[in-house]
Amino acid sequence: MINPSHIEHIGIAVKDLETAISYYEKIIGVKCYKKEEVKDQKVVTAFFKVGEVKIELLEATDPGSPIAKFIEKRGEGIHHIAFATNNLEENLKDLESKEVNLIDKKPRKGAENMDIAFIHPKSTFGVLTELCQPRKKG
Amino acid sequence: MINPSHIEHIGIAVKDLETAISYYEKIIGVKCYKKEEVKDQKVVTAFFKVGEVKIELLEATDPGSPIAKFIEKRGEGIHHIAFATNNLEENLKDLESKEVNLIDKKPRKGAENMDIAFIHPKSTFGVLTELCQPRKKG
Repeated sequence: MINPSHIEHIGIAVKDLETAISYYEKIIGVKCYKKEEVKDQKVVTAFFKVGEVKIELLEATDPGSPIAKFIEKRGEGIHHIAFATNNLEENLKDLESKEVNLIDKKPRKGAENMDIAFIHPKSTFGVLTELCQPRKKG
Repeated sequence: MINPSHIEHIGIAVKDLETAISYYEKIIGVKCYKKEEVKDQKVVTAFFKVGEVKIELLEATDPGSPIAKFIEKRGEGIHHIAFATNNLEENLKDLESKEVNLIDKKPRKGAENMDIAFIHPKSTFGVLTELCQPRKKG
């Protein structure tokens, strides 16, 4: 089992980052504290904090980005949820032994200095699920 | 502005509540602490707590339920996010004055003893957004 400590973030796919940032700042009333490009995923992200949870807006930087494909298929909206864990590698082994369909069998580099891995929505009742933990130094 | 204190819950539409509960308990490792029917919405719900945020699984009890329609159109998956507020009525007036598209112009009764209102995804970059606050007694 993963036994997550909390929900680390909610990922939301948007067409235009600046317009969406303006909505979250002016209508919802949360402040964007950081923008970051994740080249590996061909996205640029914007982060907000609401209580202990981050909202991560994601805009594709390339038509081949998973976010561009998601929006093409389903429109803008909630893309994934991410659980915080302290045992990412062990979690992935455990999930694999339970025949959970993993997108990433090994951790890879995400935004916010996190190691991340995704579980396929086929195994999670349609919810693209990310596990993440702060990257270890060294 | 809403200025939410935290994310109260994430709503997830599922076809079969018991199968989904089993996944969240055995694979993710969070415990279902409550099931509740919301007759008004034609759903039965199951609640889990992860840190300060609840996961709310929703199964339709009738083909006319918004959850049944959502699944028919998009499949199982994340249905909405709910921000906690202490000023729901004022928030709704403020949103209306800003021409935000509201599904509920007045608060109505939700699960977990909450007064709730939904903002239309047209105004929120595709994210069905709920505002909720604990129901006042009396």
